[in-house]
Amino acid sequence: MNYLFTNILGSFVLNENIAIIDKILFKDLDEHYKKEAVERKLKKKFPKIQALPNDKLNAVLALFKDKQYYPNFYTRNVILTRRGVKNSVTEDQLIIQAIANINELDKISNLLVKRLREWYSLYLPELSEKVSHHEKFVELVLEKKRSDIFTDLHITEEDTMGKNLEKNDTDEIKLVAERVTELYSLRKKHEDYLTIVMQKYCPNILALAGTTIGARLLEISRGLKRMAMLPSSTIQLLGAEKALFRHIKTGSRSPKYGVIFSHPLIQKAKAKERGKVSRALADKLSLCARLDYFKGDMKGMEYKKKLEDKFK
Amino acid sequence: MNYLFTNILGSFVLNENIAIIDKILFKDLDEHYKKEAVERKLKKKFPKIQALPNDKLNAVLALFKDKQYYPNFYTRNVILTRRGVKNSVTEDQLIIQAIANINELDKISNLLVKRLREWYSLYLPELSEKVSHHEKFVELVLEKKRSDIFTDLHITEEDTMGKNLEKNDTDEIKLVAERVTELYSLRKKHEDYLTIVMQKYCPNILALAGTTIGARLLEISRGLKRMAMLPSSTIQLLGAEKALFRHIKTGSRSPKYGVIFSHPLIQKAKAKERGKVSRALADKLSLCARLDYFKGDMKGMEYKKKLEDKFK
Repeated sequence: MNYLFTNILGSFVLNENIAIIDKILFKDLDEHYKKEAVERKLKKKFPKIQALPNDKLNAVLALFKDKQYYPNFYTRNVILTRRGVKNSVTEDQLIIQAIANINELDKISNLLVKRLREWYSLYLPELSEKVSHHEKFVELVLEKKRSDIFTDLHITEEDTMGKNLEKNDTDEIKLVAERVTELYSLRKKHEDYLTIVMQKYCPNILALAGTTIGARLLEISRGLKRMAMLPSSTIQLLGAEKALFRHIKTGSRSPKYGVIFSHPLIQKAKAKERGKVSRALADKLSLCARLDYFKGDMKGMEYKKKLEDKFK
Repeated sequence: MNYLFTNILGSFVLNENIAIIDKILFKDLDEHYKKEAVERKLKKKFPKIQALPNDKLNAVLALFKDKQYYPNFYTRNVILTRRGVKNSVTEDQLIIQAIANINELDKISNLLVKRLREWYSLYLPELSEKVSHHEKFVELVLEKKRSDIFTDLHITEEDTMGKNLEKNDTDEIKLVAERVTELYSLRKKHEDYLTIVMQKYCPNILALAGTTIGARLLEISRGLKRMAMLPSSTIQLLGAEKALFRHIKTGSRSPKYGVIFSHPLIQKAKAKERGKVSRALADKLSLCARLDYFKGDMKGMEYKKKLEDKFK
């Protein structure tokens, strides 16, 4: 009884005792991709040859520990692994990194604005009190003079609890505000970038979920392939894992939505209807993920219109 | 028996039943700062007048709930408080805000660099592996082309596990690197700013401890006044509160230094000597804080030299 065994080194004919009795070696790694031709040759020479049964595999692999084979075996395997890693870099990874950095930037700019508010409040605490919107606050710090802010807030130098700091002190504060502005603009650029990548890679998800929510869903489900495999009920709760497990463990109320909560459809819906809307939305999103993964038609816009009409 | 009582409204003469029998009111808040002259007048008129004993204070204050006094009493008090808050903004606060933002920036740029490393590793993982210094890594990402890095690391396109991404993908990564660079430069600007402020406000601490350590000490002790009051053993451990309380609670080894640990004198010392050096350093630092608070001589440089000579 003879066995045929092929790996990245070549095709081998083995006897019953798992000794090599014939072989055709590959000259380089790329020949391995045309192994069928080589195997055909050997099959002609040994018409009764069989495929190696799985239980003999260990014994066969031991053969390649031999000095004659091992160095080649090792280096070709490393190259193959490297190619595998390289080819695993897909749009999924790019989307995941970009959206992860958006999350990071949100956290970071919050930290910096809080510090900015505290620092600026030595100078003009009334502004921070009046303007609770972070981005607006940063803008005003950069644009408005002390006297302008007094006018806007209808107060005078006598009224403020802030000290009229010297220019080199306020300059330092403005530097912080400038950096925050740049972080905000980087966030916007990331969104534009994500839109471009997703337009090609998952246009249906993009059309229905929008850039940020779509990317977050891909991030949490670790890529389009896995997202396409998920049931819509799971998609509905992606991002609400904490509440879900609390529900399972303690019997607290089950969450109705995860990251899709910030979708305009759910935001606009009445509190009572939100569970229903999020179920319908997740349903269509799961269809979108499948359409995108299997390169199907462009239906995202249509779904979105339908949902909008239904829950007007 | 008559009593004399003065507040922000005026000077009052009270009889034994705490009723007002005479008064001179202040026209505005600023007259209150010249109250001695007014009190002198009343003392002439009532030669036997006494200061109000503390136990009658509550009864007196009740008088000013009267409509006749209350509005003025309230508004003048608010103005006074406002002035107090305004005047409490000193160099202490500016230093504390700047050093707090430096801490924030350190955390933030670490977060962003970690993300950058992960993202860039889709493209060229070998660089992140080779260059562990964050600032250097960011610099290389911005400056070097893929081919340059291959040359520097002695590898080829065949060797890398990264994918040769398209330009718009790498551009996005570089934007992150640019922002991090700007955050690094902001940190440096804060340090320059701190040096300028501290040069005037606490030159001795600055000379001996350096900008960052000096500012951290002021931050933790919440200002120069309190730092000047602290014993040197406390200054030695400022910033090591966690370890100190763990020591007190569980009997683990007591900490030998707090933020002064990163001082060059301690860094250069042998492990065995560090406790001794940090004790001597904290000793001189506490002297510096007192010199600075009481506007004493400039001795920081001299102390530093002495310590350097002693622990060479």
